[in-house]
Amino acid sequence: MLSNDIIELASLLGDKLCAKGWTVTTAESCTGGGIAYAITSRSGSSQWFRQAFVTYSNDAKQNLLSVSPHILQTHGAVSKHTVEKMVSGVCQAANAEVGVAVSGVAGPDGGSDDKPVGTVWFGFQVDGTLTTLKQHFDGDRHLVREQTIRFALQHLLSVIPS
Amino acid sequence: MLSNDIIELASLLGDKLCAKGWTVTTAESCTGGGIAYAITSRSGSSQWFRQAFVTYSNDAKQNLLSVSPHILQTHGAVSKHTVEKMVSGVCQAANAEVGVAVSGVAGPDGGSDDKPVGTVWFGFQVDGTLTTLKQHFDGDRHLVREQTIRFALQHLLSVIPS
Repeated sequence: MLSNDIIELASLLGDKLCAKGWTVTTAESCTGGGIAYAITSRSGSSQWFRQAFVTYSNDAKQNLLSVSPHILQTHGAVSKHTVEKMVSGVCQAANAEVGVAVSGVAGPDGGSDDKPVGTVWFGFQVDGTLTTLKQHFDGDRHLVREQTIRFALQHLLSVIPS
Repeated sequence: MLSNDIIELASLLGDKLCAKGWTVTTAESCTGGGIAYAITSRSGSSQWFRQAFVTYSNDAKQNLLSVSPHILQTHGAVSKHTVEKMVSGVCQAANAEVGVAVSGVAGPDGGSDDKPVGTVWFGFQVDGTLTTLKQHFDGDRHLVREQTIRFALQHLLSVIPS
């Protein structure tokens, strides 16, 4: 199940999107669909959510979201450049006003000095304006993924105008 | 977040797919990404999971999975015919040996005499063989979605050969 605070955040996000007449979409790597799962926990979410991609592999990021092989090779999948392309790609594919993309190191493997376990890059697009953010979350794989979902919803709530 | 038994099922599924050298993909409507979220709860899941679609709207089912408008109009989104097309479409898109598609009425709204709340159609494809199943789950929206995720994983485990 989803934790109660995440369900509440998703519900508030639904209210805000519904009031604007906007839809949201997601392109998820490390969370593997968890943000979309949270968004659709609210009954009636078909009004503000139509589709989303889980792009776990680099090939999926390239083929579905037009992230270039050059970006993936030069900056890596967990990078500002990758989430920028992911979120713009998914908003275009879904024709959505609002999007969020995440790519991170959920662990326990895959960490490096540069990008330790818990590093997550977020891309947000709201009505044409794109921003990126890097966060570091503590805890095991499940906690890193849960905190990533929570942060994505909280940040969307803070940047969507009323 | 995810219940322990679902995490355990996803882990067993990973072992089975890894041993076969197969990958799995998902096309989710009512679960909104929850099956993919469960599959990727296991560390190392990039070995058997590359991409997935959340197709919540009819347009998404048409555009991403080639479900025909005729099928959606004649049989509805929650139908054997729709999940058949969803699962074959997503396996083709992901070039995956194993796929699962779900479309159901999670509630509390959207039920009918014919398709009451808790009705879920599943499409499974394993190494080219496609099967469909209808289930009815009791409980609220969260419970219906959780039981759908659990059933999908359990059934995949039962039909993937060792």
